[in-house]
Amino acid sequence: MSGTSLDGVDVVVAEFWQERRRRRFRLLGHHHEEFPPMLRYRLLRAQEEPVSIGEVARLHWELARCYADAVHACCRSIGITPQQLDVVGVHGQTVWHEPAAAEGGVGLQLGNVPALAQWLGCPVVGDFRSADLAQGGHGAPLVPLFDYEFLRSPHEHVAAVNLGGMANVTVLPRGCSPAQVRAWDTGPGNVWIDAAMEQFFGLRYDPEGRTARAGRLLMPLWRALQDIEFVLAPPPKSTGREQFGRPHLRALLQQYVPARVPAEDIVHTLTRFTAWSVAENLRRYAGSVERLIVSGGGACNGFLLELLQQELPGTVVMTSQEYGIPVLAKEALCFAYLAYRRMAQETGNLPQVTGARCAVRLGVVALP
Amino acid sequence: MSGTSLDGVDVVVAEFWQERRRRRFRLLGHHHEEFPPMLRYRLLRAQEEPVSIGEVARLHWELARCYADAVHACCRSIGITPQQLDVVGVHGQTVWHEPAAAEGGVGLQLGNVPALAQWLGCPVVGDFRSADLAQGGHGAPLVPLFDYEFLRSPHEHVAAVNLGGMANVTVLPRGCSPAQVRAWDTGPGNVWIDAAMEQFFGLRYDPEGRTARAGRLLMPLWRALQDIEFVLAPPPKSTGREQFGRPHLRALLQQYVPARVPAEDIVHTLTRFTAWSVAENLRRYAGSVERLIVSGGGACNGFLLELLQQELPGTVVMTSQEYGIPVLAKEALCFAYLAYRRMAQETGNLPQVTGARCAVRLGVVALP
Repeated sequence: MSGTSLDGVDVVVAEFWQERRRRRFRLLGHHHEEFPPMLRYRLLRAQEEPVSIGEVARLHWELARCYADAVHACCRSIGITPQQLDVVGVHGQTVWHEPAAAEGGVGLQLGNVPALAQWLGCPVVGDFRSADLAQGGHGAPLVPLFDYEFLRSPHEHVAAVNLGGMANVTVLPRGCSPAQVRAWDTGPGNVWIDAAMEQFFGLRYDPEGRTARAGRLLMPLWRALQDIEFVLAPPPKSTGREQFGRPHLRALLQQYVPARVPAEDIVHTLTRFTAWSVAENLRRYAGSVERLIVSGGGACNGFLLELLQQELPGTVVMTSQEYGIPVLAKEALCFAYLAYRRMAQETGNLPQVTGARCAVRLGVVALP
Repeated sequence: MSGTSLDGVDVVVAEFWQERRRRRFRLLGHHHEEFPPMLRYRLLRAQEEPVSIGEVARLHWELARCYADAVHACCRSIGITPQQLDVVGVHGQTVWHEPAAAEGGVGLQLGNVPALAQWLGCPVVGDFRSADLAQGGHGAPLVPLFDYEFLRSPHEHVAAVNLGGMANVTVLPRGCSPAQVRAWDTGPGNVWIDAAMEQFFGLRYDPEGRTARAGRLLMPLWRALQDIEFVLAPPPKSTGREQFGRPHLRALLQQYVPARVPAEDIVHTLTRFTAWSVAENLRRYAGSVERLIVSGGGACNGFLLELLQQELPGTVVMTSQEYGIPVLAKEALCFAYLAYRRMAQETGNLPQVTGARCAVRLGVVALP
């Protein structure tokens, strides 16, 4: 998995199996590998300004090399080789996501799937979002089926939120069926917090939320953020850097942040906005939530977790770690599960969640 | 199939089967559909100047719509539906081909494979070149295995040349084994002839070569063309619009064509160059050739065929039509055959032809 946060690649090695009508998993390894700085820079640039088609092609291949290296490293760490894997699922790097384009949804993930299969010596599944988009869906979110299988409860109303570059929630009512699962993107996760940290502090993220904790709320910026239509729009909805990229943030800061304001206040306000937008989405569209399971890089931000708990006093806020899923491994584990399903020729989307006309078999398969 | 000539999409419907140790085919339908003018313009533009990643994504999806429409039209013409097809093979539109990049080969085909599978309701195989590139090959040419299966002779030395945007030859010595097949790109096929026709006559190609036939050889241009290193370089080699695009042609014309020269002379000289470069490659690198089977759009150019026959007096020059393969259907039929092989989990490249380390199973599979 490599997400819109562009922090690098997360690899998990996991086993999945069926046991008395329920799917089970066992996590065998987890490895995080940062993107080489120039690759990260070029990926950002390609999303912000015109580039040559040759550059797009090179990114497509260099990402695959990066994924291959990361899979090799993860396998090495647990003493196996990639050839021993039954299948690898690779999300690819989303460089475009436009589910509501005039002529039908459009999306693009880079990262060459057949090349990865050759370099790893095992089957690879990739391009998980296109089939759903082609059936009129948003191609996102795709984590909900995983959440349904592994996080639902017969006793409690549960919600899961992944705070990656963007934030997405899955709502799992007590004892729900797949058709009762609901999920959508709520807006930015860490993408704007990270952009501000990079701009003002030269860091890639706010460690444990200490910067945000030291700041104060900037009312004009806060009000402008709350006016962003996407956040309060009813689901289904999904988003990406097209909407919540650095250019949009730059415009907001220029318009609403007075000179001489401490940069901590900006990070504080953006962090509050992420917490509020997740909470407000749950309040408006989720019904009762007794337990909220947080994952993604944002789950390492202690201040953000506190804000979430303050916003949702009637809900137990916890991280996915308490379910045996390291917070940075959750999405990777989900796409491993989707690859497992593709090899079994099972569908992977939930139509009521993505808006697709039907459940479809997600992903293309390349053989070694 | 849609090739570098950007003339549109060729669809064939065919049956393949095994009969007494030999593969057989039956062509059931053939349909040619031109690209919508704006799509063609945007594809050319994306290869000549920087574009936004959103434009790349939109082309990726619009091409798939175009392919879906063309497959539907071909099926309709023979009274079947796409759902009745066992598999569709789609080459995609090559927008980048750089087999000798510093960090290993790089190539990019646009045309969304999973979307096509959803819209047609049948399995689709695409992205045929990546696996070979990933194994150090050129990812091209991929037609030779088809030529081997269906054009080889126990009695004659045969060569096949496809005159598409680029020109590629396959050499099939008498009674050869797959390991004895040789093939490579010889240089431009119609790409520069077509560019000159568009520039000077507002036509997309030279009908039957009448324009070229009316012109005379321009010596300075002719000598400059013969100096292009790619043409005489030894195989394996492959090329594309990166090398033989409109900007390169423009530079040559500006430097070597005096004012007041009739445009027919330019088209004549470019046509001679295509014939000479194919013939010269065969003379230098093919050994004896008793029969040359011509296909592709260039096979409709009577003057070009005559030039080829003049260049190769000891060889019988004929078109693939005489083998039951309409000249514009040949490449599409080849990729249909490669899709058939992928579904049977068979390899599709010839390592000695592409330069790959090994034979690999080409293509990714998307299910409806």
